[in-house]
Amino acid sequence: MSQGYQLHERLQADTIALGVSSLCDILLMNDKTWPWLVLVPRRPGTRETYELADTDQLQLMRESAVLGQGLMEHFGGDKLNVAALGNLVPQLHIHHIVRFQGDPAWPAPVWGKQPAIPYDSEALAQRVDELRSIVQAVQAV
Amino acid sequence: MSQGYQLHERLQADTIALGVSSLCDILLMNDKTWPWLVLVPRRPGTRETYELADTDQLQLMRESAVLGQGLMEHFGGDKLNVAALGNLVPQLHIHHIVRFQGDPAWPAPVWGKQPAIPYDSEALAQRVDELRSIVQAVQAV
Repeated sequence: MSQGYQLHERLQADTIALGVSSLCDILLMNDKTWPWLVLVPRRPGTRETYELADTDQLQLMRESAVLGQGLMEHFGGDKLNVAALGNLVPQLHIHHIVRFQGDPAWPAPVWGKQPAIPYDSEALAQRVDELRSIVQAVQAV
Repeated sequence: MSQGYQLHERLQADTIALGVSSLCDILLMNDKTWPWLVLVPRRPGTRETYELADTDQLQLMRESAVLGQGLMEHFGGDKLNVAALGNLVPQLHIHHIVRFQGDPAWPAPVWGKQPAIPYDSEALAQRVDELRSIVQAVQAV
């Protein structure tokens, strides 16, 4: 089912690949302002969640829930933002962003508030390391 | 399971109730700028999707997919935005917004771009009427 799937070049440029789950590419947004992960169902040509097969929709819900809970428990956020927007990148991708009261965009959504602040290599290695068990939990769904 | 559930007063103020599905209140955002519906699972104290019981999570996915597809097919939008944010209103609620290239916020998310433009009574009656079959489809899930 992943045949013909290719990650959109904009997502490829803006993220770091953390692994592949049963359904999705698991990506870290290269913006250290927020803990921000993205799930991309590896189904070619998909723009909207409802275009996925029923079984894929349910798998996506399960993976998203495990990812969201893992992120919130690890980072102790005040609120999780989960969103499939795609106005700029039409390939279906679901943002999972841990929000904190007083973060640079709070309480507004994060998009367009400030330019991404990329990780340096040390901070990136540390973030990838601390996300490992969450990624594994998503891969176990 | 709905016992003790009460719609948040801010959502009550900003929306028009269209009906109740197996899981959710189905609400129309009182902003005629976009076709914008909100699903609120009728489960007291729920802030995040992953806090719902597994069966409720899957029901939510199905209701959301039927709603999203119905809206996109009826309004012929360019992109659907689906989001659970909740930074201002912590009660779990999932936005479904039909977006059009060139709409007043495109391609940015809609939140915070411009004040809501409420429906007048005639436009509201018309909108409720045209949404009836979509609401019924969600209720049939």
